[in-house]
Amino acid sequence: MPYINIRVTDEGVTPQQKLALIEGATDLLSRVLDKDPATTFVIIDEVPTDNWGVDRDSVANRRQRGK
Amino acid sequence: MPYINIRVTDEGVTPQQKLALIEGATDLLSRVLDKDPATTFVIIDEVPTDNWGVDRDSVANRRQRGK
Amino acid sequence: MPYINIRVTDEGVTPQQKLALIEGATDLLSRVLDKDPATTFVIIDEVPTDNWGVDRDSVANRRQRGK
Amino acid sequence: MPYINIRVTDEGVTPQQKLALIEGATDLLSRVLDKDPATTFVIIDEVPTDNWGVDRDSVANRRQRGK
Amino acid sequence: MPYINIRVTDEGVTPQQKLALIEGATDLLSRVLDKDPATTFVIIDEVPTDNWGVDRDSVANRRQRGK
Amino acid sequence: MPYINIRVTDEGVTPQQKLALIEGATDLLSRVLDKDPATTFVIIDEVPTDNWGVDRDSVANRRQRGK
Repeated sequence: MPYINIRVTDEGVTPQQKLALIEGATDLLSRVLDKDPATTFVIIDEVPTDNWGVDRDSVANRRQRGK
Repeated sequence: MPYINIRVTDEGVTPQQKLALIEGATDLLSRVLDKDPATTFVIIDEVPTDNWGVDRDSVANRRQRGK
Repeated sequence: MPYINIRVTDEGVTPQQKLALIEGATDLLSRVLDKDPATTFVIIDEVPTDNWGVDRDSVANRRQRGK
Repeated sequence: MPYINIRVTDEGVTPQQKLALIEGATDLLSRVLDKDPATTFVIIDEVPTDNWGVDRDSVANRRQRGK
Repeated sequence: MPYINIRVTDEGVTPQQKLALIEGATDLLSRVLDKDPATTFVIIDEVPTDNWGVDRDSVANRRQRGK
Repeated sequence: MPYINIRVTDEGVTPQQKLALIEGATDLLSRVLDKDPATTFVIIDEVPTDNWGVDRDSVANRRQRGK
């Protein structure tokens, strides 16, 4: 019954990529801990770049500086 | 001082339903653990169906297949 | 497929009380949003009173002052 | 490597205010626990006022009543 | 800069299994979204079986019934 | 009504340091967004170093290598 929450910046993640994350995370829990995929939840949160900070700056500002 | 986070898929939850969740969760904590409603927080997150996976597929795909 | 996370201070919640929270939260989502109990997750986090702050103080300190 | 998640109601937080939260939270962890800003994450979640409950009511309703 | 939170029941996950989860989740974000492993956080929460509910019962009770 | 969740590795954070985090985070939200300290929650999660991964390794392993 695992719950996996993936938080990434909101920068154009496609439905195909989301599906790949869901499949990959589910398979990981199945392979490592023998967890049942039928009761494995994967939730992806897309966070605006203004709202995500690292190294004392927003990702929005970092992207503008080319990082 | 409980904190209750309810995560559901974003499929048309109405303000009335959100209020019913807030009331019900607050009453539950008051009844079972005698917690003060004045300092009980309830936060509802509505997650796009593309971003929620179960059984190795997105809810968006499951809905298309009639699940 | 709801996910409900209940965070309370770690002050002697009994297994019976935990079960009442699990049942009550599951029933709430079933009643309000017609969610299937079979895929409703409820996770209770018990947080040490030193680690929970409100009104600019820890709950541990507040308890010592009789609050 | 701290992770700080700040959840507030979605009521017009500006990019400047978000940056002040990111800087302030990063500095706090650096000052108190000597954590490296380069690996300190701050994520701000803005929650609609319909989706945040306190004292058994939504913040949306409380705002309408002038609270 | 992804943040991945894996929540599982506390049933004897070994350090080797935790490492496999960390490696697998980091590789998944690198492969699918080209995220830098150096700033990918993986946090594993082990939840007591009394505190995890599914299908209106605790996992502790379900395990006793052989589920 | 902000909710602030601070997650750090479990490496001997003292009650005094926890109090400094609670005070600092509450003051930050009061200063930047004029939030009322009486309804500001701060929750600190201490995560075992085996359970926290960064750069594709556990913090436990990194500490052994002197990082």
